[in-house]
Amino acid sequence: MPVLVMKFGGTSVATLDRIRRAAKRVGVEVSKGYDVIVIVSAMSGKTNELVGWVNETSPMYDAREYDAVVSSGENVTAGLMALTLQEMQVPARSWQGWQVPVQTTSAHASARIEAIPSDNIMASFGAGMKVAVVAGFQGVSPEGRITTLGRGGSDTTAVAFAAAFEAERCDIYTDVDGVYTTDPRVESKARKLDRIAFEEMLELASLGAKVLQTRSVELAMRYKVKLRVLSSFEEQSDEAGTLVCDEEEIMESNVVAGVAFSRDEAKMTLVSVADRPGIAALIFTALSDAGVNVDMIVQNISEEGRTDMTFSCPTDQVARAEAAMDEAKGAGTINFAELIADVDVAKVSVVGIGMRSHTGVAAKMFQVLSAEGINIKVITTSEIKISVLIDRKYMELAVQALHDAFELDKAA
Amino acid sequence: MPVLVMKFGGTSVATLDRIRRAAKRVGVEVSKGYDVIVIVSAMSGKTNELVGWVNETSPMYDAREYDAVVSSGENVTAGLMALTLQEMQVPARSWQGWQVPVQTTSAHASARIEAIPSDNIMASFGAGMKVAVVAGFQGVSPEGRITTLGRGGSDTTAVAFAAAFEAERCDIYTDVDGVYTTDPRVESKARKLDRIAFEEMLELASLGAKVLQTRSVELAMRYKVKLRVLSSFEEQSDEAGTLVCDEEEIMESNVVAGVAFSRDEAKMTLVSVADRPGIAALIFTALSDAGVNVDMIVQNISEEGRTDMTFSCPTDQVARAEAAMDEAKGAGTINFAELIADVDVAKVSVVGIGMRSHTGVAAKMFQVLSAEGINIKVITTSEIKISVLIDRKYMELAVQALHDAFELDKAA
Repeated sequence: MPVLVMKFGGTSVATLDRIRRAAKRVGVEVSKGYDVIVIVSAMSGKTNELVGWVNETSPMYDAREYDAVVSSGENVTAGLMALTLQEMQVPARSWQGWQVPVQTTSAHASARIEAIPSDNIMASFGAGMKVAVVAGFQGVSPEGRITTLGRGGSDTTAVAFAAAFEAERCDIYTDVDGVYTTDPRVESKARKLDRIAFEEMLELASLGAKVLQTRSVELAMRYKVKLRVLSSFEEQSDEAGTLVCDEEEIMESNVVAGVAFSRDEAKMTLVSVADRPGIAALIFTALSDAGVNVDMIVQNISEEGRTDMTFSCPTDQVARAEAAMDEAKGAGTINFAELIADVDVAKVSVVGIGMRSHTGVAAKMFQVLSAEGINIKVITTSEIKISVLIDRKYMELAVQALHDAFELDKAA
Repeated sequence: MPVLVMKFGGTSVATLDRIRRAAKRVGVEVSKGYDVIVIVSAMSGKTNELVGWVNETSPMYDAREYDAVVSSGENVTAGLMALTLQEMQVPARSWQGWQVPVQTTSAHASARIEAIPSDNIMASFGAGMKVAVVAGFQGVSPEGRITTLGRGGSDTTAVAFAAAFEAERCDIYTDVDGVYTTDPRVESKARKLDRIAFEEMLELASLGAKVLQTRSVELAMRYKVKLRVLSSFEEQSDEAGTLVCDEEEIMESNVVAGVAFSRDEAKMTLVSVADRPGIAALIFTALSDAGVNVDMIVQNISEEGRTDMTFSCPTDQVARAEAAMDEAKGAGTINFAELIADVDVAKVSVVGIGMRSHTGVAAKMFQVLSAEGINIKVITTSEIKISVLIDRKYMELAVQALHDAFELDKAA
């Protein structure tokens, strides 16, 4: 039997009624002849409740106990989903991470899946079971402790199962009906994409379009998993949602696939750093050791042996970055005059694999922003993405202007 | 290091504050030099919520999935308790049933513990861990599925661990401060017992004094586990609560240790049953097959080849008993004129190991009830217990009169 993986997020299993609706979707696929692996999240709100208890109990918690506690929400949904399917006469059973087992690293709270032996679940399919309901987000470490994969980790669980079982497709059911050219709440003309390339999705995911966990897209790309994002709240056809796939499978596409943005960026500038070889390594090693996720990095032109170093990081890591830099200054490792934090900025990016073969995308982006009177503070580019930091108050305007200019409301 | 087992019930871990209070008690025992195994229940209300979801999803649920769902509450408490202890600088970690592993039978929802290998937890004590926090009520079947031990099963988990680890004592922390001569809500003069014999506790537990799960008392008796029941809401001395122990350890005791009662009894009478050899076996096999827990059995004097057979069972099993008897009658297996169910009865019992050496306890009990004008409907006796069925409306009166007559408000 061909295997299909279906993943249901927290809002899709928030109540017993919604679990029933999701189970009906599973039943439809079973009736088409698939053996189905269903990956479930915790009922929405449950994981937050558990995380809240852990934080209140122990602010600097032992991540192994954090994992033991927060993984329990998915176990509940898995059992309830299996029971719901059984009520519909669909042979199903639940699987917790350690029962499969989903083997992960020991990096608690952000573990990576290392292997998913398929024997146990395949044996159950062989014995007449039609659905394996797997608790997402969790696994087991080599030491036999429960691990979790980080927030949104059930997406990664789903893709990893699709890869391990060579599934025909991995359907991610969520509360949106696909991937859009930008957030429809910011630009009403945003258009749902029928297909998007893995590389584009990866940039969009990491740029704050929180439809899929970044790691799940990376995995899907590496293992060529056909990934579909679709809504659990609408009647579905086989062509519903957005297919995330190899770029070869996309016949025609716009040069720019989408406009992404993130409000939670801060611009940090180290003023007058002693400009000597190895200084960048010192700065960013110190930030990395402090757990600061640096995104963009720009070094200004050096004058008289001193330079300004600008970087961006999530706003909630500003205090941590400041502490790390002050400590390095105190220890004499890094010498700088001042650290200026600008938290009133936003990042706006255009993403598209078409950029590889089309020149002038960056120039056009800068012209559009300039025509709106928006000042660009930092620029970074990759092969398929151009990102700028701008004043936050212009973010919506920039997204709308770029969406218009690149005609994203029209299909290729 | 000597090992101590401490079990905290649902009300004792109902909030993060109460978990903290319980953890402090654990810390006190650790500071005395014990390696402590803490058994925790789910936060009160959680298991009922989960059971409710299962019942709503699937009234005739698959018990394997029931177990997978309802066991999750204990996992949450175990992790939170371990984190709380760590915050108090007490080295602790949580253990779920499968991690120990707590090996049980495959009788889902009412599994029995078969073995608890001590290697893993002893190794963790050897490595400097001071507390093993174990999720109660759960285990793992030979098939690798999660099992649960039935309601109140965490008591049994606690006693089984005490036996497996040859613990010095098993302390059951609950919302009452010990075992009483009767329920203080019915008789205000009820007195807390300092000690009670296993046999007495067993009769009291099975008679509806729901302080301890019956099975846990059986296990404690078989493995000579010193079992103490005490309150988690009061400051504790080493002499607090009630010690459940071998009768040899009780120097002086009243002839009667306590008066127990149960409101949920029904009296069933099969009128005019054909009185022939093997008829009782037929009746009670049919009831047992139907899952009816028969308690008292009385056979009236037979007249002209026919007899009346009276038995008692929980009120919520009356319908099941009636169906089983009707079916047997229809099939011609059992012949009777009528089945009369009386659900307005209660069972009142006096319990005490002193009865073995004192005569006249039954006579005194019947005189007391007679003096109050209470009619006795059914009588059964064991070596250390006399039980009667009476009209439910006289239950409180009977309990108070017996408590007075046997002077249970005074220590021996």
